[in-house]
Amino acid sequence: MFQSFVEVRGYELDSFNHVNNAVYLNYFEHARWEIMKEKGLIDFFRKSGNFLVVVETHIKYIREIKLFDKLVINTSIGREDPYLIFHHEMLQSGSNKKVSKATVKTLLLDETRTPIDMPQEILMMLNE
Amino acid sequence: MFQSFVEVRGYELDSFNHVNNAVYLNYFEHARWEIMKEKGLIDFFRKSGNFLVVVETHIKYIREIKLFDKLVINTSIGREDPYLIFHHEMLQSGSNKKVSKATVKTLLLDETRTPIDMPQEILMMLNE
Amino acid sequence: MFQSFVEVRGYELDSFNHVNNAVYLNYFEHARWEIMKEKGLIDFFRKSGNFLVVVETHIKYIREIKLFDKLVINTSIGREDPYLIFHHEMLQSGSNKKVSKATVKTLLLDETRTPIDMPQEILMMLNE
Amino acid sequence: MFQSFVEVRGYELDSFNHVNNAVYLNYFEHARWEIMKEKGLIDFFRKSGNFLVVVETHIKYIREIKLFDKLVINTSIGREDPYLIFHHEMLQSGSNKKVSKATVKTLLLDETRTPIDMPQEILMMLNE
Repeated sequence: MFQSFVEVRGYELDSFNHVNNAVYLNYFEHARWEIMKEKGLIDFFRKSGNFLVVVETHIKYIREIKLFDKLVINTSIGREDPYLIFHHEMLQSGSNKKVSKATVKTLLLDETRTPIDMPQEILMMLNE
Repeated sequence: MFQSFVEVRGYELDSFNHVNNAVYLNYFEHARWEIMKEKGLIDFFRKSGNFLVVVETHIKYIREIKLFDKLVINTSIGREDPYLIFHHEMLQSGSNKKVSKATVKTLLLDETRTPIDMPQEILMMLNE
Repeated sequence: MFQSFVEVRGYELDSFNHVNNAVYLNYFEHARWEIMKEKGLIDFFRKSGNFLVVVETHIKYIREIKLFDKLVINTSIGREDPYLIFHHEMLQSGSNKKVSKATVKTLLLDETRTPIDMPQEILMMLNE
Repeated sequence: MFQSFVEVRGYELDSFNHVNNAVYLNYFEHARWEIMKEKGLIDFFRKSGNFLVVVETHIKYIREIKLFDKLVINTSIGREDPYLIFHHEMLQSGSNKKVSKATVKTLLLDETRTPIDMPQEILMMLNE
């Protein structure tokens, strides 16, 4: 399991004074970027020309988050061929209250944007 | 059924040169704002102090969208007490190819942020 | 002079219920994208590998803009070697009240990110 | 002088693979939010009904910033009645290279959105 940390910024609040729905998606995306960086996948993708695209997202908003809230995002990764599935949970730091959870289904595309099987190499990099 | 129109703007592209996942959510949210405006619900909410929150979103990304693409968003509204459900479809204008679809589950909160039943009045305003 | 049109979207409002400062920059950037599209510069840049970067922005916020406001952006382009300067004005459609103005100084970079003189070709494309 | 810290997130990159111009404004805004929080001004504004609006921004983009760059924002505050002026500098953490600087002119509005003089209280809170 991977952990990422974000803090809510003032400009991320919407007209109801809470964090806009789309910003949660940004936070979860940030968590995936951190994983890819940590596992060397950003370089791997750059060299191979392959890249992951999101094909489906399912997100639950459980609790509203507020200005300056510190959040922890826990991510685990599963596989349902040909998909790589990211399971994210967002918790309030400290209280550990769950504020959101999301399932993000991704697919690997090659340079011609054709879906390809997940190379063994990627799975090994993620499991290291 | 309601129709909204958006055109992809240059600053909405991400580092892969396509529209970021979270931007799709923004477009769907825009469609809901337009419906609420058209049906007089923005004023209604302002007066009553009630407001709709999104509790769950399920979105499929079917086709990538590009700079200056013109998009049509078709929205229909269903009810599963106590939820109001928005069913969105996003199509490329012209080709009519489907690029995304989403189901957005919303709940009505009162001023104290307590969930309340959907007033008959709102349902009537939406069906007019 | 070029004209662009934008309409304020619900998700662009901030916690004070008006359009966030950074969104004005987005609108002005949108105007520049439209000019570049209209003048064939997007393809030109893609082929040449050159691209414009913003090196300085000066923006005045004159009047707040609200949800669903329709805005007109008037843009004229000047030259102060080696810079290309965009002068933007944002007006409320209908009332014609000025809501913002901005000066955006841009510089052309080649593929190695070195500043280069503005090719005569670009200036001609913009003046056509 | 105040210091804030931000790290560039993956979803903040644009189609040229660098951080979009408007995002710099967001980072500077974040720095101002942190100052207001630290100085107790967020509560002060909430109670008084007064709030600061940005009337002018002048920003220089000196160096491009990249994914995962860690940035330091140094802010000092000046006064030119009736304005409160924020002077921001953004540096790459570590190298200490300057990447951007901005001057942000703000004005205090009361509940009726009328400009008012900066109360002595605010100036004292900021100087503590």
